[in-house]
Amino acid sequence: MGRIVAHPLTVGALANALNAELLGDPDTLIRSVSSLDAASDGDLTFFSDRKHRAAAEQVAACILIVRDVDRDISNGIRLIHPAPHLAFAQALDLLFPLDRVIAGVAAQAAVDATAQIAGAQIDAFAFVGARTRIGAGSRIHAHATLHNDVELGDNCNVHSSAVIYPGVRLGHRCIVHSGAVIGADGFGFQPVKNGWRKVAQVGGVVIGDDVEIGANTTIDRGAIDDTVIGDGVKIDNQVQIAHNCHIGDHTAIAGCVGIAGSARIGKRCMLGGAVMVVGHLSICDDVVVSGGSLVSRSIDKPGQYTGIFPITPHRDWMQIAAKLRRSIR
Amino acid sequence: MGRIVAHPLTVGALANALNAELLGDPDTLIRSVSSLDAASDGDLTFFSDRKHRAAAEQVAACILIVRDVDRDISNGIRLIHPAPHLAFAQALDLLFPLDRVIAGVAAQAAVDATAQIAGAQIDAFAFVGARTRIGAGSRIHAHATLHNDVELGDNCNVHSSAVIYPGVRLGHRCIVHSGAVIGADGFGFQPVKNGWRKVAQVGGVVIGDDVEIGANTTIDRGAIDDTVIGDGVKIDNQVQIAHNCHIGDHTAIAGCVGIAGSARIGKRCMLGGAVMVVGHLSICDDVVVSGGSLVSRSIDKPGQYTGIFPITPHRDWMQIAAKLRRSIR
Amino acid sequence: MGRIVAHPLTVGALANALNAELLGDPDTLIRSVSSLDAASDGDLTFFSDRKHRAAAEQVAACILIVRDVDRDISNGIRLIHPAPHLAFAQALDLLFPLDRVIAGVAAQAAVDATAQIAGAQIDAFAFVGARTRIGAGSRIHAHATLHNDVELGDNCNVHSSAVIYPGVRLGHRCIVHSGAVIGADGFGFQPVKNGWRKVAQVGGVVIGDDVEIGANTTIDRGAIDDTVIGDGVKIDNQVQIAHNCHIGDHTAIAGCVGIAGSARIGKRCMLGGAVMVVGHLSICDDVVVSGGSLVSRSIDKPGQYTGIFPITPHRDWMQIAAKLRRSIR
Repeated sequence: MGRIVAHPLTVGALANALNAELLGDPDTLIRSVSSLDAASDGDLTFFSDRKHRAAAEQVAACILIVRDVDRDISNGIRLIHPAPHLAFAQALDLLFPLDRVIAGVAAQAAVDATAQIAGAQIDAFAFVGARTRIGAGSRIHAHATLHNDVELGDNCNVHSSAVIYPGVRLGHRCIVHSGAVIGADGFGFQPVKNGWRKVAQVGGVVIGDDVEIGANTTIDRGAIDDTVIGDGVKIDNQVQIAHNCHIGDHTAIAGCVGIAGSARIGKRCMLGGAVMVVGHLSICDDVVVSGGSLVSRSIDKPGQYTGIFPITPHRDWMQIAAKLRRSIR
Repeated sequence: MGRIVAHPLTVGALANALNAELLGDPDTLIRSVSSLDAASDGDLTFFSDRKHRAAAEQVAACILIVRDVDRDISNGIRLIHPAPHLAFAQALDLLFPLDRVIAGVAAQAAVDATAQIAGAQIDAFAFVGARTRIGAGSRIHAHATLHNDVELGDNCNVHSSAVIYPGVRLGHRCIVHSGAVIGADGFGFQPVKNGWRKVAQVGGVVIGDDVEIGANTTIDRGAIDDTVIGDGVKIDNQVQIAHNCHIGDHTAIAGCVGIAGSARIGKRCMLGGAVMVVGHLSICDDVVVSGGSLVSRSIDKPGQYTGIFPITPHRDWMQIAAKLRRSIR
Repeated sequence: MGRIVAHPLTVGALANALNAELLGDPDTLIRSVSSLDAASDGDLTFFSDRKHRAAAEQVAACILIVRDVDRDISNGIRLIHPAPHLAFAQALDLLFPLDRVIAGVAAQAAVDATAQIAGAQIDAFAFVGARTRIGAGSRIHAHATLHNDVELGDNCNVHSSAVIYPGVRLGHRCIVHSGAVIGADGFGFQPVKNGWRKVAQVGGVVIGDDVEIGANTTIDRGAIDDTVIGDGVKIDNQVQIAHNCHIGDHTAIAGCVGIAGSARIGKRCMLGGAVMVVGHLSICDDVVVSGGSLVSRSIDKPGQYTGIFPITPHRDWMQIAAKLRRSIR
């Protein structure tokens, strides 16, 4: 059996919720879900890509969400929906509802007397600093730290061991995963005789609504002005966003990306895994950068950009590398 | 003097424990250890590679673990062993024994009443959620967080500020270093009008026995099915393993590696530092990928693979890069 | 208005502190600061680069720190200084003074009875282990962990959720940002039949004075000898420094850099973002490595080095990559 659901539903109730046509017994209970690859009898699963049609025919005893063109896939239970992937995501929200937020402060939390936290859940070992405001319906998990003067909107989740430095502002419905650090000092130093002089980082971080920030991601505070993350931006794990970057609305940033100081990324961009962006560049709206590329100059036309040395058997690589080196002699 | 040992031994006792031939006074006490490079009189050190023979002759007053072919290296104390490096590692385990686990819960810990923790050590500021089970001989260090329904085997170490999300399962003898985050949501979103819709990540993470997970490494939970880490896998620091990856037994992953979603890595592979693996690829057993390479296609033959742009003086690089760009005109 | 200062000063007082010539009313109060780009009336700002002269003329109602050659930039308030950027940094230190350290231990901290912490501030949920020594004027923030036998100098800041493993030593005036992990085990394993054998990591980490360590950066303890970070080294976020590395004084390491085991980096080097350094290499003093490069061989001459595959539109990239692959047929 696949993943057991937290809140079983009948297929009839699900069809209603999804506004889907139902083929089969409406009283059948959905007890488990699965990907198409791993599906077994009775699991709820879906497919929309024609190339998976053959695989879907093999799991005819599942409860399948399919498009109209695939309604003949089986004699079993089917929900007909124009966007099966989206419908499945909606089903997951119903079958695995989020923990309900229970407003209150755990006995082992540390909350400053001047913090404003009405309607939020503050778990054990959470730390909330002076004058920090947390919106209703938000949850601060065990070991999360919100320092002084932080503003967090409604219905946010700040996970364990995330750290939010003083003065950082986040909008509503933001999710900050464990180990993320928002608002640490930017890397600002001046060369002086015998080394480096630290430049105080007095800017802030301003984050919009509906932003998700992955585990162990870091977003530095601005040097003077703010670092700005737009609405709907989605940031994966282990990403580094340096001081004074601006990330446009609805841009998605995959894991291990690094964005150097004062770079400006447009709206609706997609940065693949491990992309690095040099500082003080700008990337316009609607740019896709392939994973592993280094963006070393500004991009002012939408489209896909790539800069990756092709992987080869090691022996071949040695020849290519030698040839490149020779090419400049 | 080198590193002072925590638990001094006589060379006689060590020779017995290693099953090594001893040349020299068995009652001499080992008080310190060192690498060959930094060795001074009386330190325990070793060498096995012939090219270090000359260096070893310079440290004749050390206690040396050597192979039989090097028994004439000095007139000092020598332990003759067929694998000096391995013997030295065994010696370290005796000279620096691990802290003994003292079962019990610190007064400042937060442990849910339904957790099962018999025989484990739970330190101050550790957090253990509902129904979580921790095996005997395991230690949960200060500020580690194990959320609800976690399963952790026997003789594990979860270090400070590591976070384990709900439902994650780990086997026996696992080590999770500080700041590691296991089971955060995978990066799963659907494009919708005006941005992205979060897809609930309801899969888990299943980790085998004898796995070591480095500091600040992240391993995401599966979208529907599980993310799976095999037995004996060794993962260095700052590694990102995305949702639904499968890592085969005894594979070693060096620092800063990123593995995108649903990638399948075989058994006994070695990924060098900063390797990036594109999602939905598969790498067969016994593949070695050179540090810094991006794996952009599946690999189905064992062997070493590389894709790195060769480093050169900056002026030369500008010529090579210009030549590459011109090559497509 | 720009960033509101924490501690307003008159321009007269600032001119005195900076030893700058003042043009304008000395009693004007500085209430806000800004970058040149974002400056509005009354903000303190600066410029020194001639190419920003036109922009500076647009913000004539600001309080401007300028060089003597630009004294005619406006009729407004000007402070004349030979190094405006440096003067501005000095001004920031006066206008945004650091929180004063208030020696004492918060009620919710956990400090071992044998720790030596006179003159330090230990916040709620800070953890300080046995025999650990913390210098006067240092602050250990909420959720920071200093394990047993750590030595921390005077006037240091260890931020929230940073973890310092047993036996690590740091000098004076060090800053450790949130989520940094210092002293976790190096990635040391020996190949054995059926996998890998862990090699105890018994070395330490020794860190000099005036070192700054970024958020979520990791520095591993040595295998036998120590990992060594020199005086004045500045390390950005998400950096990985493996066991037994040596980093020379005043070297600056940008975000996402990885340095493999036993690499030796000289003094006054600058490693750009995401640079990777292969293990057991050495880089001499005064080397600059461009961001994104992989250092795969030792560098023994000062200068700038680069190894980056140039980014192009994706279609062009496919041609270049195909051409490289063909070049070895």
